Amino acid sequence: MTKENMAMLCDFYEFTMSNGYFKNGFYQKNVYFDVFFRKVPDNGGFAIAAGLEQVIDYLSELHFEPEDIDYLRERGIFDEEFLQYLSDFKFTGDVYAVPEGTPVFPNEPIMTIKAPAIEAQLVETFVLLSLNHQSLIATKANRIVRAAQGRAVLEFGSRRAQGASGAVLGARAAYIGGCAGTACTLTDELYKVPAGGTMAHSWVQMFDSEYDAFKTYCELYPDNPTLLVDTYNTLKSGVPNAIKVFREVLLPMGKTKCAIRLDSGDISYLSKKARKMLDDAGLNDCTITASNALDEGLIRDLMMQGAQVDTFGVGERLITSSSSPVFGGVYKLVAVENEDGYIVPKIKVSENTTKITNPHFKKVYRYYDKESGKALADELCVYDETVDDSKPHTIFDPNASWKTKTLTDFTARELLVPIFKNGECIYNKPSIKEIAEYCREQVDLLWDEVKRFENPHNYYVDLSKRLYDIKNILLSVASY
Amino acid sequence: MTKENMAMLCDFYEFTMSNGYFKNGFYQKNVYFDVFFRKVPDNGGFAIAAGLEQVIDYLSELHFEPEDIDYLRERGIFDEEFLQYLSDFKFTGDVYAVPEGTPVFPNEPIMTIKAPAIEAQLVETFVLLSLNHQSLIATKANRIVRAAQGRAVLEFGSRRAQGASGAVLGARAAYIGGCAGTACTLTDELYKVPAGGTMAHSWVQMFDSEYDAFKTYCELYPDNPTLLVDTYNTLKSGVPNAIKVFREVLLPMGKTKCAIRLDSGDISYLSKKARKMLDDAGLNDCTITASNALDEGLIRDLMMQGAQVDTFGVGERLITSSSSPVFGGVYKLVAVENEDGYIVPKIKVSENTTKITNPHFKKVYRYYDKESGKALADELCVYDETVDDSKPHTIFDPNASWKTKTLTDFTARELLVPIFKNGECIYNKPSIKEIAEYCREQVDLLWDEVKRFENPHNYYVDLSKRLYDIKNILLSVASY
Repeated sequence: MTKENMAMLCDFYEFTMSNGYFKNGFYQKNVYFDVFFRKVPDNGGFAIAAGLEQVIDYLSELHFEPEDIDYLRERGIFDEEFLQYLSDFKFTGDVYAVPEGTPVFPNEPIMTIKAPAIEAQLVETFVLLSLNHQSLIATKANRIVRAAQGRAVLEFGSRRAQGASGAVLGARAAYIGGCAGTACTLTDELYKVPAGGTMAHSWVQMFDSEYDAFKTYCELYPDNPTLLVDTYNTLKSGVPNAIKVFREVLLPMGKTKCAIRLDSGDISYLSKKARKMLDDAGLNDCTITASNALDEGLIRDLMMQGAQVDTFGVGERLITSSSSPVFGGVYKLVAVENEDGYIVPKIKVSENTTKITNPHFKKVYRYYDKESGKALADELCVYDETVDDSKPHTIFDPNASWKTKTLTDFTARELLVPIFKNGECIYNKPSIKEIAEYCREQVDLLWDEVKRFENPHNYYVDLSKRLYDIKNILLSVASY
Repeated sequence: MTKENMAMLCDFYEFTMSNGYFKNGFYQKNVYFDVFFRKVPDNGGFAIAAGLEQVIDYLSELHFEPEDIDYLRERGIFDEEFLQYLSDFKFTGDVYAVPEGTPVFPNEPIMTIKAPAIEAQLVETFVLLSLNHQSLIATKANRIVRAAQGRAVLEFGSRRAQGASGAVLGARAAYIGGCAGTACTLTDELYKVPAGGTMAHSWVQMFDSEYDAFKTYCELYPDNPTLLVDTYNTLKSGVPNAIKVFREVLLPMGKTKCAIRLDSGDISYLSKKARKMLDDAGLNDCTITASNALDEGLIRDLMMQGAQVDTFGVGERLITSSSSPVFGGVYKLVAVENEDGYIVPKIKVSENTTKITNPHFKKVYRYYDKESGKALADELCVYDETVDDSKPHTIFDPNASWKTKTLTDFTARELLVPIFKNGECIYNKPSIKEIAEYCREQVDLLWDEVKRFENPHNYYVDLSKRLYDIKNILLSVASY
């Protein structure tokens, strides 16, 4: 793409609606929109929120350029005063969001935007796109990393990504979700995610022999080189040539760290055979990397078979989250401010009850068990409610309100933190390493039942009594 | 992302290999790489090539900036002379490719790059990423458009795309594949794909009543407005309010063109009921648009049920090709030039026979039946072979070489056209409209058996006798 400014990356209806808000005076009315999702990809027990940093950058720089205004003018349907308004447009609202790396659950806000109607409307597409994309990949990466049980997982998928930002920001999100690094150089340069990589089959083919290719490579990069051993025949030529070169080039230099990479064939069988050949040659420090259309299912299967793999390189199935490639975050109006500054909750009803929204400007509490440290439940409250975690607190299931639970020895943490106030970013963006570390810690605080791959436990996302009552009143008066 | 220059969007191994090629003098050696794919997404009978224009832009502008060189220097493994070489780097090679919008088949080159080794290696990731992404979405769009049997299909998926370029260039590819337009404004501004759209549920919720929301909208946009009728209750409130407003606002202005949009519920049932209500109200010119997690399967099903839908808005399942979200294009070395300028074919063998490559610098012919105009087969030939379509020509199946067919009344067309010569773009880029029109024409030239959704006929991609022999000789001498 030839444009950095993403202001025009919005659905055209955001302009037609905004022009309407402008003409009938709604544009100064403050409105509240929530971003939330309804279903965890891959039927998992939780998702990992990501993409906030790019939303911050977008909102901070949001403006329209003269050519954008010209383009809109040529469409012939927009008011000249509205176009003038857009020329001076900037974001002046408030934003609350869960920090990147937070485990999140269906139907709770992961971001709330309070802003004049046009501003809130025009940012819809980019905000959703950024949070949906990166949360999708962070969630998938976390699944794959958990399947690998401590073995390193590297992101290798740029070439199969859905576009350049899919590759570059996907690798960023994969790191948040727990990957140890990426093959994507630009993600390292821009976002400090460690990039690495060694050779493709073409390197081996460029030389007269596999042995020459390996030898040249090890002489060039004697510090922990990885040799790709499947260009011709893995066990008959690749591994023997690798062993020969490691012994001839590395050992005389006193270096023992090295690796081979398997990129085709039966990884379980080949890794065990290769491990034995390497060990028999005294190359116990040589590790084995495996790649080739891996995902969490195949990795779990390889682990169960006792495959001798130390590092998994995961490509297309991670960078596209191929088994579940859509994160369905939505952006829904939850409240409007009336002339007196009073916040009026709004609800979107639907013939499909799962699509009914949780109304109002809200806060989200996460409750942790003091003894185990584990997360017990989340509770959505009205923005001005406060939970005192020094006293017992009773929560209930909004879908079965007779099911109650009284929390006693617990701590309460607010999940949504202030990001923008009156258009100014007031959030200290953590480093990518801090985000990844925070993600790891927070996932550790989930019960294993929430983390399992098959039929995970439904973590509780409850409504406070007050919010529950407001929702029911709105439903009963909704015009249907 | 904060960077427009995509030179660093490459796998890190491309730098480690290139540094090696530089140090051992390979960098001046001309090499030939093919881009091809092995499997059509969704088990379809063909794919639509797309993404070439972005490859052209990328190669034309390819360079490294001082901060890129600094980043690489800090990695501590690259030769200073190599970094100097990169500072002055530009693409000097030749490129051949099939035009965007061409139906393409597994195992035939859709692009061939001839360039000095480092240049050919460093462009691998971006070239694949661009062709893979846009071919994926163009192919999916074509499936959905064919399912809609002439009804318009609009691309609505930006918010669920995998990153900004996924949204913007995905909408471009969807148009190539046959969509009539997009909701993505930036795709219109940058790539001239018509963008449109009307209202979200939030518009309806902003007003005191659905009627007020509709009335305000129609007064603002009386030319063919589309009203979203499912915010409260589609048949009890949405459609009646739309009818009322159309009659009160549009008809007195002498306007009859308008539309309603259904975004939830049973589209088949609701569309039939709504059609009847509209017709009974004399609004025969009012069309019905349907959206809500549609894809080619659901659209075919709706068509079979006689759903009264005139326009389909397709979102997440198109923009991510969700049922088959990876286009597996690969980039394989097929030849190297030796010191005498002789082109030496190369092959990549594999324990998995479907992964064995077609060696050599090649041309691709497509043969059309003169009488019906339909495409009969493609044939891969050595670059200096010529097929004379005024004489009978015998082709054979490379996987069953006794199966031969002699073409008589046919025309031959070369699919790969020159794009770059010595680093200069020599291709006149067609307009997006021309590409979409060419795609439609070329898909029309495929037999219905190739186009069907279930178990499509395997279109023939044959090898010339000479290429077949070269491949077999290389296989027999390959070191395994």
